[in-house]
Amino acid sequence: MRFAAAFLITSRLYSQTITVEAPPRTLPAHVAAKLSPADFELFTKLTQVGLEAAWAAVTQEGYPLCFINELTPLNTDRRMVGRARTVRYLPNRKDLRDKIYSAGPQLNYRSAEEAQPGDVLVFDAGGETHSTISGAMVTTRFLMRGGAGIVVDGCMRDVPDLAAMPASFYLKCGHASSVSPLMMSVDYQVPVRIGGVTVMPGDFLVGERHGVLVIPASIVDKVLEKAIEHDEQEDFQRTLLLQGEPVYGVYPTLNEANKKKFEEFKKRKK
Amino acid sequence: MRFAAAFLITSRLYSQTITVEAPPRTLPAHVAAKLSPADFELFTKLTQVGLEAAWAAVTQEGYPLCFINELTPLNTDRRMVGRARTVRYLPNRKDLRDKIYSAGPQLNYRSAEEAQPGDVLVFDAGGETHSTISGAMVTTRFLMRGGAGIVVDGCMRDVPDLAAMPASFYLKCGHASSVSPLMMSVDYQVPVRIGGVTVMPGDFLVGERHGVLVIPASIVDKVLEKAIEHDEQEDFQRTLLLQGEPVYGVYPTLNEANKKKFEEFKKRKK
Amino acid sequence: MRFAAAFLITSRLYSQTITVEAPPRTLPAHVAAKLSPADFELFTKLTQVGLEAAWAAVTQEGYPLCFINELTPLNTDRRMVGRARTVRYLPNRKDLRDKIYSAGPQLNYRSAEEAQPGDVLVFDAGGETHSTISGAMVTTRFLMRGGAGIVVDGCMRDVPDLAAMPASFYLKCGHASSVSPLMMSVDYQVPVRIGGVTVMPGDFLVGERHGVLVIPASIVDKVLEKAIEHDEQEDFQRTLLLQGEPVYGVYPTLNEANKKKFEEFKKRKK
Amino acid sequence: MRFAAAFLITSRLYSQTITVEAPPRTLPAHVAAKLSPADFELFTKLTQVGLEAAWAAVTQEGYPLCFINELTPLNTDRRMVGRARTVRYLPNRKDLRDKIYSAGPQLNYRSAEEAQPGDVLVFDAGGETHSTISGAMVTTRFLMRGGAGIVVDGCMRDVPDLAAMPASFYLKCGHASSVSPLMMSVDYQVPVRIGGVTVMPGDFLVGERHGVLVIPASIVDKVLEKAIEHDEQEDFQRTLLLQGEPVYGVYPTLNEANKKKFEEFKKRKK
Amino acid sequence: MRFAAAFLITSRLYSQTITVEAPPRTLPAHVAAKLSPADFELFTKLTQVGLEAAWAAVTQEGYPLCFINELTPLNTDRRMVGRARTVRYLPNRKDLRDKIYSAGPQLNYRSAEEAQPGDVLVFDAGGETHSTISGAMVTTRFLMRGGAGIVVDGCMRDVPDLAAMPASFYLKCGHASSVSPLMMSVDYQVPVRIGGVTVMPGDFLVGERHGVLVIPASIVDKVLEKAIEHDEQEDFQRTLLLQGEPVYGVYPTLNEANKKKFEEFKKRKK
Amino acid sequence: MRFAAAFLITSRLYSQTITVEAPPRTLPAHVAAKLSPADFELFTKLTQVGLEAAWAAVTQEGYPLCFINELTPLNTDRRMVGRARTVRYLPNRKDLRDKIYSAGPQLNYRSAEEAQPGDVLVFDAGGETHSTISGAMVTTRFLMRGGAGIVVDGCMRDVPDLAAMPASFYLKCGHASSVSPLMMSVDYQVPVRIGGVTVMPGDFLVGERHGVLVIPASIVDKVLEKAIEHDEQEDFQRTLLLQGEPVYGVYPTLNEANKKKFEEFKKRKK
Repeated sequence: MRFAAAFLITSRLYSQTITVEAPPRTLPAHVAAKLSPADFELFTKLTQVGLEAAWAAVTQEGYPLCFINELTPLNTDRRMVGRARTVRYLPNRKDLRDKIYSAGPQLNYRSAEEAQPGDVLVFDAGGETHSTISGAMVTTRFLMRGGAGIVVDGCMRDVPDLAAMPASFYLKCGHASSVSPLMMSVDYQVPVRIGGVTVMPGDFLVGERHGVLVIPASIVDKVLEKAIEHDEQEDFQRTLLLQGEPVYGVYPTLNEANKKKFEEFKKRKK
Repeated sequence: MRFAAAFLITSRLYSQTITVEAPPRTLPAHVAAKLSPADFELFTKLTQVGLEAAWAAVTQEGYPLCFINELTPLNTDRRMVGRARTVRYLPNRKDLRDKIYSAGPQLNYRSAEEAQPGDVLVFDAGGETHSTISGAMVTTRFLMRGGAGIVVDGCMRDVPDLAAMPASFYLKCGHASSVSPLMMSVDYQVPVRIGGVTVMPGDFLVGERHGVLVIPASIVDKVLEKAIEHDEQEDFQRTLLLQGEPVYGVYPTLNEANKKKFEEFKKRKK
Repeated sequence: MRFAAAFLITSRLYSQTITVEAPPRTLPAHVAAKLSPADFELFTKLTQVGLEAAWAAVTQEGYPLCFINELTPLNTDRRMVGRARTVRYLPNRKDLRDKIYSAGPQLNYRSAEEAQPGDVLVFDAGGETHSTISGAMVTTRFLMRGGAGIVVDGCMRDVPDLAAMPASFYLKCGHASSVSPLMMSVDYQVPVRIGGVTVMPGDFLVGERHGVLVIPASIVDKVLEKAIEHDEQEDFQRTLLLQGEPVYGVYPTLNEANKKKFEEFKKRKK
Repeated sequence: MRFAAAFLITSRLYSQTITVEAPPRTLPAHVAAKLSPADFELFTKLTQVGLEAAWAAVTQEGYPLCFINELTPLNTDRRMVGRARTVRYLPNRKDLRDKIYSAGPQLNYRSAEEAQPGDVLVFDAGGETHSTISGAMVTTRFLMRGGAGIVVDGCMRDVPDLAAMPASFYLKCGHASSVSPLMMSVDYQVPVRIGGVTVMPGDFLVGERHGVLVIPASIVDKVLEKAIEHDEQEDFQRTLLLQGEPVYGVYPTLNEANKKKFEEFKKRKK
Repeated sequence: MRFAAAFLITSRLYSQTITVEAPPRTLPAHVAAKLSPADFELFTKLTQVGLEAAWAAVTQEGYPLCFINELTPLNTDRRMVGRARTVRYLPNRKDLRDKIYSAGPQLNYRSAEEAQPGDVLVFDAGGETHSTISGAMVTTRFLMRGGAGIVVDGCMRDVPDLAAMPASFYLKCGHASSVSPLMMSVDYQVPVRIGGVTVMPGDFLVGERHGVLVIPASIVDKVLEKAIEHDEQEDFQRTLLLQGEPVYGVYPTLNEANKKKFEEFKKRKK
Repeated sequence: MRFAAAFLITSRLYSQTITVEAPPRTLPAHVAAKLSPADFELFTKLTQVGLEAAWAAVTQEGYPLCFINELTPLNTDRRMVGRARTVRYLPNRKDLRDKIYSAGPQLNYRSAEEAQPGDVLVFDAGGETHSTISGAMVTTRFLMRGGAGIVVDGCMRDVPDLAAMPASFYLKCGHASSVSPLMMSVDYQVPVRIGGVTVMPGDFLVGERHGVLVIPASIVDKVLEKAIEHDEQEDFQRTLLLQGEPVYGVYPTLNEANKKKFEEFKKRKK
């Protein structure tokens, strides 16, 4: 038998402190160092805000199709925050490929080269799983320019190298192939589809291990305001629950007594 | 070239000790501290028993549809042990929702509030991947009551927070949404379907990274007895294999010589 | 609010060194110790070579269907290198099972017992997800013989134990069941199908977290030669990119100026 | 060559009349003959109403999750109209099965035996594709009682016999098996899930080859009223389009000139 | 409005005769004409036997994994009866392809050329949907030799031509491609996997629109005997149900009174 | 027993003529009547050419990703021939929708209104199955303008009406919904993705029940020339096979003797 009597006694003495929150989150240093002051403040807020509170705010603003949960992040220990730069891919086709590739650089090179600090490259590859869109070399350049992450409805190569980078990657899966012979890039900075969400250039993306929230730039301030207020109440509600209060009267709505306590809680924090 | 000649020499000197077993398993402290003495003993055994040996025993007792491998655990480093408390969800529908929600609290609140130490909430959400069943706030309350885990044939929100908790979570995926507008809870403590298995209130659930075994309460003692005996033999077989014996004569059935050695092995352990 | 003003200042001071490569890779000690000198050299090269460079070489040699990305590795932190030993499974059927199983040992036992150092067992289970092909006991024997990994288009049991072993495992998922009553082994050392790739006995397999490359033995030297040369250039290209050069002129093709620098780079390394 | 010059000339002479509507629909005689006068009138309306118009009305009444398009009808040439009688199935499990089956007849027998004229049996089998829920024998009894159709989120057996019956069947697929050993019936006349829709006992079901609309009984009159009005306008719009008018000004909204024509069109029909 | 008052009256007068059985089945003439007298008798029985009754008998004989319902027949109006002739395909691979194709004709040519009257070609293509296994030309030769059908876990080309032939075809889907560059035939007359069933050369296959039953040759007589007896009882049960008797006491088990009637029914038929 | 002794005798006398070709194909009259003489000749050839021969020619011209077999046609008895007119859809999003829809008519209206005789509307809806792209009303207008078919990587409504029309429809499935609230049209006459193929405006589409071949306009003449020549040889090969010749020496390559016969066969046809 694998277990011993000793165990029966000692484990009773374990502490009961329960962890119920993820560890604090930070911006990647190579991104933080390059952001403008305004962006730095905005990105910091987006790094700290509750993803679910932000989802609720985006939905209330009239954008219910705003969450991508069809992709898998390479690392589960980090938040992604960034601004979308989009590329659209299509199945390879000689005539169109020749036309596009003779007109300028392949669009994943261009998107890396033109990336601004805090950008997230968004590659719509139509869900393709047998051809990769990009790899570690171009991504190295992208990070040198302050790139924060890549979201691809398809595959990437050099996956262990990507996973070691201080950025976020959301993929369907990996592969060792090149982009040819199955795919080609066709459009740059156009609206694209990722999972069930339309992403537009300039959208803000906030990702956790369970998915990526897409926030139109025009509503990002409003969303943050609402969500931060919501988070503050959840902080208070969590405190009450950890003190042993029942869920009724605490969550989702505070009862009258708890509402008063919350007002005091907010005053103390100021 | 990434590799150096030096490597060719040094790695030859590596030790040959091979790890072939997962690290020891323990009950979460916040659960262990709250269990009755009888439950503590039972849960401890369920924490230590071999999952495959238990599966064989459950199947032999006439329950072949007993293993859920269609869900993904948030953490792969722990065993889940608990007693099922079930809730059935259905696609949202105004008339039924109004009727049910006016009759009492939403059932995930109720299930958290009524949870007993060592309970596992089992949410049958029909595999829905675009609406969550519950999140970190209600789960905090559930843990305060001694909750051990959640199994949901669907999604949860606040996934990084859940992953930080000392409990087990089995999901299809995560999402940032609320339960509405797509789903609603309709039944409490009824038989439910998770993957291809019927789970009943009071069933024992034993989970590892590759799935969850469902043990009807009426056979749990018999299952443990058989499985622990089986584990003892596997411990012996593993020892033989690690000594360099061939698989023939050792596994799955001991030959006569090894049977005798096994009898001595058992005597020595007493 | 979860974030503090202090954070706004301090993170600006973070270092900007960017990691863009996975940590170095090594052969498992229990494999390395048993390989013949020739195999040790070959396996070491296969451990170090770039997977994508090798993929390109295999494809150029006329084998485009060479990459398996339909399975999931149990551990994402290691490379698998090995030589294929294949077994073909079929759905269980009494008459054929009786005939085969009375003629000799079950083929997963036999394959473990006959394994040579550095072998990878390749089990074609047709994608079955409700029945396992093998487990920790037989795999222990396999490792004692110098086994390097297992690739199964199906399931295995004892998954936490497997994950603790110093080997690589690629699966569709796990289960707690035995091989019966759903499957049976029927053929040994025949060509098999894994994902969309035909694997033959003696093929070399090189696996990372994103998939497994299949290299016919007859071309492995040529593939290594080409790929190592390619890797050398990528090392140089990476250096340039980390110095802040734009992707144009560096990748995928060096411009004339960089080609000269590359020649000097190679000279310095000799 | 398969084609002849003669063809080049003759096909030019073909008539240009274009069929743009499905043939008229009727109630199955064995159902029509048994309905009460009130039901006969209601069922006749439901047989004639535009499915899309009815969908719009149901959605506007607050029931957006009302359409099942995950199943396949056995025959594509007929409309199904009926009132839901529901049964819930779960994966087989000895203890629960023994309890339920000793308490009364298997629920597919009971539902057939208690069926009222115009009923549609709705079997929630959780999408199971390897075990059937019912077959031709029990369905024969169901038709003798005036049964109109069967909707099953799973399989049925005796499929060629079912397809020859004057009723409608919506399935995932067929199989030759019995209900055991994989499934069992557990609940009768409870809310169930079919595809992404909750169906309640007494709901009206209207099916075409592309899916089944679920109409809560409490809103069926309102839905019919709205939808019939909508259909009348579409009849007029179709007439205009067949006269060669452009879609602009005709559909989806009539322009002022066409609105006047529509008023006259309605008057003429009275 | 699409419906007229007249309809409300006339449909009430419809006859109530209910069709509950599929039309009679016949062997294809080109097969029937070529069979040996013994095969003709056997095939005729297999053409007439109830598929579900035969399934029950095969299962009782110890072969529960005997029904393929993962493929789609090109025509839903016919039964397939035949003897399996198998070919195994694998993903294309230059070295193995060169070896096999230089040793003799491609195996779909050979299987067509060697086919015996009443044979069904069974192609295990691993579920591939982007490359076809065979087409109308080789199938024409197969039919000239008395071929009865083709079952392929993959695709065929020339689908409209196949659908016009007096044979049965079960496919995953169709495609216009040739077998290269994705697939190659590797083994002839070996056990293969189709859906979840192992098919061996010489097995009898009985197909309907909902799937294909696989009967090992060694038990075909026993299976037919049992199944024909079962069908006889179902004929009687159907008669009772069409006379208006309740399902209780009739199906699945006759009560004492009906058992006596059945004995008389059998006597009358002799 | 369902079968009678009489059958055993009579079926032996059946004729042996075997049908091995689909019935002849024609252009829809409403399309044929509107085509220009040049288009009429081209469309007639595309109606008669062998789909597989054309596939081979397109592939040889350098376009291997040219066949869509991921959609289902509403009718299996007809060929579709047409010229692509494309629309790209994306998941609905308020800001982009408002911008696009205020700039002009919804693009499925526009595409129907601007359609030229023989056009096929190609709607890239990203595989969406819960929202329709278009329905019978707009399609009526499309047919009045000479529309030949619709290919949609998604759903349509009014499916029974569409199925009655003299046109071809390829869908994922049907639904009763409108295009909102899930989807919106965003681009007109741009390259789109359908299944795994890029379709460009002006491409020729040739569809059968098993899929749609995409032929770039620039190579259509060359493709027809090659394919018609290939068809002629297949006609000859079919004749030989129906005369009882073995497949060897006839297909895929004629032996010397048969090559001579073929030359004579071609002369006789002139």
